[in-house]
Amino acid sequence: MAPAGALLRRSLKAYQVYGANTDVGKTIFTTLLCKACQKFRPGEDVSFLKPVSTGPQEEADDWCSHINTYVPGVATKTLFQFEDPVSPHLAAATSKQATPSDHVVLQSIRRHVSDRASSQPGWLFLETAGGVHSPGPSGTTQADLYAPLRLPVVLIGDSKLGGISQTIAAFESLRIRGYDVETVLLFQDSHYDNHTYLSQYFAGEHGIPLQAFQPPPRRSDRQSDVRAMSAYYETETETEQAPDLVDRLERSHQTRIKTIETMAGDAYRTIWYPFTQHGRLSPSRITTITSAHGDYFQTLVPDSENQPPGDSLLQPSFDASASWWTQGLGHANPKLTLAASYAAGRYGHVMFAEAIHEPALKLAQTLLGVLQNPRLSRVFYSDNGSTGMEVAVKMGLRATRQRYNIDNATKLQVLGLKGSYHGDTMGAMDSTEPSVFNEKVEWYDGKGYWDPLFQRALIDVVRTFPELLHTRHTVDASSQGPSVWTGLPVIFDEVFTGLGRLGPLASASFLGAHPDISVHAKLLTGGLVPLCATAASESVFEAFNSQHKTDALLHGHSYTAHPVGCQVALESVNTLQNLDSKGAWDWAKQGWEQRPADRPSSGAKAADSLPHVWSVWSNKFVTQISAHERVEGVWALGSVLAVHMKDAEASGYTSNSAAQVQQELLAGEIEQGDSWNVHSRVLGNVLYIMTGQMTDEVDVQRLQKLLARALG
Amino acid sequence: MAPAGALLRRSLKAYQVYGANTDVGKTIFTTLLCKACQKFRPGEDVSFLKPVSTGPQEEADDWCSHINTYVPGVATKTLFQFEDPVSPHLAAATSKQATPSDHVVLQSIRRHVSDRASSQPGWLFLETAGGVHSPGPSGTTQADLYAPLRLPVVLIGDSKLGGISQTIAAFESLRIRGYDVETVLLFQDSHYDNHTYLSQYFAGEHGIPLQAFQPPPRRSDRQSDVRAMSAYYETETETEQAPDLVDRLERSHQTRIKTIETMAGDAYRTIWYPFTQHGRLSPSRITTITSAHGDYFQTLVPDSENQPPGDSLLQPSFDASASWWTQGLGHANPKLTLAASYAAGRYGHVMFAEAIHEPALKLAQTLLGVLQNPRLSRVFYSDNGSTGMEVAVKMGLRATRQRYNIDNATKLQVLGLKGSYHGDTMGAMDSTEPSVFNEKVEWYDGKGYWDPLFQRALIDVVRTFPELLHTRHTVDASSQGPSVWTGLPVIFDEVFTGLGRLGPLASASFLGAHPDISVHAKLLTGGLVPLCATAASESVFEAFNSQHKTDALLHGHSYTAHPVGCQVALESVNTLQNLDSKGAWDWAKQGWEQRPADRPSSGAKAADSLPHVWSVWSNKFVTQISAHERVEGVWALGSVLAVHMKDAEASGYTSNSAAQVQQELLAGEIEQGDSWNVHSRVLGNVLYIMTGQMTDEVDVQRLQKLLARALG
Repeated sequence: MAPAGALLRRSLKAYQVYGANTDVGKTIFTTLLCKACQKFRPGEDVSFLKPVSTGPQEEADDWCSHINTYVPGVATKTLFQFEDPVSPHLAAATSKQATPSDHVVLQSIRRHVSDRASSQPGWLFLETAGGVHSPGPSGTTQADLYAPLRLPVVLIGDSKLGGISQTIAAFESLRIRGYDVETVLLFQDSHYDNHTYLSQYFAGEHGIPLQAFQPPPRRSDRQSDVRAMSAYYETETETEQAPDLVDRLERSHQTRIKTIETMAGDAYRTIWYPFTQHGRLSPSRITTITSAHGDYFQTLVPDSENQPPGDSLLQPSFDASASWWTQGLGHANPKLTLAASYAAGRYGHVMFAEAIHEPALKLAQTLLGVLQNPRLSRVFYSDNGSTGMEVAVKMGLRATRQRYNIDNATKLQVLGLKGSYHGDTMGAMDSTEPSVFNEKVEWYDGKGYWDPLFQRALIDVVRTFPELLHTRHTVDASSQGPSVWTGLPVIFDEVFTGLGRLGPLASASFLGAHPDISVHAKLLTGGLVPLCATAASESVFEAFNSQHKTDALLHGHSYTAHPVGCQVALESVNTLQNLDSKGAWDWAKQGWEQRPADRPSSGAKAADSLPHVWSVWSNKFVTQISAHERVEGVWALGSVLAVHMKDAEASGYTSNSAAQVQQELLAGEIEQGDSWNVHSRVLGNVLYIMTGQMTDEVDVQRLQKLLARALG
Repeated sequence: MAPAGALLRRSLKAYQVYGANTDVGKTIFTTLLCKACQKFRPGEDVSFLKPVSTGPQEEADDWCSHINTYVPGVATKTLFQFEDPVSPHLAAATSKQATPSDHVVLQSIRRHVSDRASSQPGWLFLETAGGVHSPGPSGTTQADLYAPLRLPVVLIGDSKLGGISQTIAAFESLRIRGYDVETVLLFQDSHYDNHTYLSQYFAGEHGIPLQAFQPPPRRSDRQSDVRAMSAYYETETETEQAPDLVDRLERSHQTRIKTIETMAGDAYRTIWYPFTQHGRLSPSRITTITSAHGDYFQTLVPDSENQPPGDSLLQPSFDASASWWTQGLGHANPKLTLAASYAAGRYGHVMFAEAIHEPALKLAQTLLGVLQNPRLSRVFYSDNGSTGMEVAVKMGLRATRQRYNIDNATKLQVLGLKGSYHGDTMGAMDSTEPSVFNEKVEWYDGKGYWDPLFQRALIDVVRTFPELLHTRHTVDASSQGPSVWTGLPVIFDEVFTGLGRLGPLASASFLGAHPDISVHAKLLTGGLVPLCATAASESVFEAFNSQHKTDALLHGHSYTAHPVGCQVALESVNTLQNLDSKGAWDWAKQGWEQRPADRPSSGAKAADSLPHVWSVWSNKFVTQISAHERVEGVWALGSVLAVHMKDAEASGYTSNSAAQVQQELLAGEIEQGDSWNVHSRVLGNVLYIMTGQMTDEVDVQRLQKLLARALG
């Protein structure tokens, strides 16, 4: 699917009108807004859009004709019209028309806006139907359906009995989806006096101005109605409030644009970026991300100041680094938001030492279940992959010293893989070999031996032949149960690889081996907040068990096992597991046949069964680009694609060969009139691209097409 | 104020009935629930509670008399009755009665439940008024007002036009406050058919069962109404749905209790705790925290299995470690929740390298403003205090090497304070002196010199006499502007001390000195999610600036500057600043006079003015307990109180002397019939207690009283 971009154009002041309920006067207020804009911005275009309407054609025209009657000159339009006068999801189901998908609705709105936008200043009011969560044609509620457009909102409050509650609840449902409510309008009602309470609530608590207008005259016969309504609109736009309202909407539009256009410059002066050489940075190289939805960022277009005022200031940009490998269930996934806010509302954060709360316990139990590793029985929480790896190393060192009675004076080191990377805290970095990441730093003090062995071979050697490690003691594993480690404790860093990024939920299964310690982060929270879980076996855990406080694993962070992170992770892991069991990736698996040769030799202690090795990137595509003259090799697994570029001059991290392809992807393309591009990251000569765990086949195909073209 | 505890008793199945709107049939459904419980749980008490009602007394009695008419034998009660038939906040304002505070309303409910609860099994349905956000007497909306009770919810959906939206929005407003919605009930309506959509939505998306019942008969005259309604209730409780509903509510009550009673045991087997010697742990020592609100945890009472079934299973426990020093704006603060969910809904997480989003930029700008340190101009984000301190050390080492042209082979070390602690990652620990935290670990490799100097003296020496450092180069600071560091870059670890914990927002002001690097976490996010900001001067920043990628600060975490954390921090820092400027702590400051002697000697380069030194702990109280025979010394500053206990046998971290007082605090006391206690943490012989930043004088006085008694 082509991404539905957010709507922002310099010349077009566009607002979405949401109602706190049905029958709160949305159309009357929209008409008032149109009239006020016409009155106080003479010469500016004013237009009205009703994306979806139900009821007979003549009634649908009613929205438009009401506005045309009282504010002549406003361009009005209904995009989707269903005969049956019920909720759009029901009307669409019984209609002869095909039900438009959410994507089609959004694209139609975008088209309409493109057609309306010009170099002349103008206004657009997009009126929703019913309340904020009234379903659209597909059944998706409007608050979710229209969220990707990220239009600022005029919320029409409810002045009737119960209206305070309806208005606040509607506001919250919008807010938790990232909507900016710019103003609240409602009718004055001296009996219920909702506007007094709500004014204090919105202005006082949230800095959102509220204005109360007189209610319209009661209806009588058609002819006097028209006269009365004409007079009403005339009177209400003559109040002081009306020009104030127009001024505020004007100002908020300009402020919105100014903010996003100055952000890169301000960031350039204020932010110290991770992993970034500022000497090579400039404001124009900083991507301004105004929002994100699904797989796409919405970013400020380059050189926006110099483009025609009717052009879009934002463009969709596929998040092909999966936001540094974290993204799994789509940006702004409402279920993750709700999980996070539930935990925030139930606990905030609660301290974890010698205490337990439900999200932390359930997550630990769920994770141990998902990993399907009979060795693992304990979960230690920390804040990110790097700290989680330090915890793992601390566990492994202690278990080893204790098992082999090594005295305190003897320094222990790790046995690791060449080319590995486990995070940026000093302890994690000291556990990796000397590399470009630490060659120039003052503090690096590598403590280990690093081999280029195959991982499985390394594990087998360590576990089967402990005498190679020159230890005096050996352990007969068979006498001690399957969860007791032998040789050395084996740590798997699954921070990036785990939970489905490479296909299976436990990528340890690729090696047919069960680690003694396994570290999980990134996808763990589906791409929302930091959290890490280091899972360990009872045999490792026991090494810290004594009567002395100082023997304990004296590690902890204040926000250890923060409920928000645990609840989000619980939702994520359950969702990832469901996707897996429901065959969400069957379309991708089909193209990658499982060959018997993928299985390990019979001599090795294999896990019960090896997983299917597959990728969302098609076999054909991978084969094709791997033969490209600029490409040295391609690696595809699960949602990850890594393209190693040839570079005659430089190699590895210092190479710039991948950056050229990255630029091509960022330039993007125009598809059916809409521009889109791909935001990716490179590691020297390696361009890596990954999708989310919910990206569909069509989107992968688009990416493949663009990447093939970028390679030239 | 006495804390309002959550309501949970083994024998009493209590549910709160919320309506998605006014006029959705709350009373009819509550009556149905009462009748069904009576029918299918013969012999069990059924009671009905209307906490707040408005309208003439006879109408108020209507709720009760309706239930008494159709379900004789139900105990009914209204707690607060206001004559004026408008919203309770308006009715209370015009009433002759004093408006009851939220606290009084909650305590009245608790009293009523205490009176109702017995050893016999029973049911209680607490019916709210209007919609979820209809205001209570004080103006606080019901969803916020009743949240501390944490009663499971029966949500009455809206079957009318627009009801889908109202029901989902109401559900979300409850959910983001941590409510558990156990079931949704609504009337069948074949025209709008909301129940079909909502059934799919609640059961399919959220695992919450929904049941639709027939609507009641239309009203005619009073006598036939009674007959018709009697028949209606009879018919509806004869459907299959009715016993199902009762069974589910019964099961969910039992499951709720079983879950919290097994959590400690399950955690004991599954969780590997931070900073905890498991050999000295037992399930009974693990605190089960079921929720938290304001300053209080709700915890499972000890030995709950053996107490009378009518007793409360939960008790409020003052969070006196401020959840490991993080808590500032109250647990489950709705504004922090809304800030978190807004960012989640707008972005999810977006990658931060060479990109910018609004919460990260605004937070950086706001923080630099709050710190009022003219040296600081850059913000680097990481995930917690420990990683933020590693970042600071990396910054300081590079700046030093670069300034003095020290070659790569020369190892640099830190100059630190004795007795300091900067977090648990290996690099942070290696920057602190050998101590009980690292004496037994395999990996500790202290890299520094640690002095017992006064902090300000150390700073002055380092900055003024660089030749003492045996460096070959000196810098004339006066020639380079005030933000250029001299001698060595000075790092302040403000992770714990900053943002008001010790009183002033920048506790650096105590020393009258401006650090070159300043690290902030914990209170930064008000006590919700992990985030750290390391602020640095341009002069430090420049040391990493070149054309070579490998000279950059190659540090970063995947969730660096996650929007959720930044938005929450922005809300927190703004709130803390507002509290400060609005004199929220004037009551505490009054007791602590600022003496001229607190000022530094005139020779030192002082900051413009020194802050007032004060504490929420009263001068009198601190003086009193410091003279206690068991106490060696007392330290009070801002919201922190540290009591150093005498111990003849052991000292420091290995002492257990503070643990005895801790146990006394945990035993707590009964106040006006309600038990409450204090959950604190100790560090060896030091008992430390801190309040949140919004704890009021009355609560501090209660804590002081209990602590004085605990000391004996």
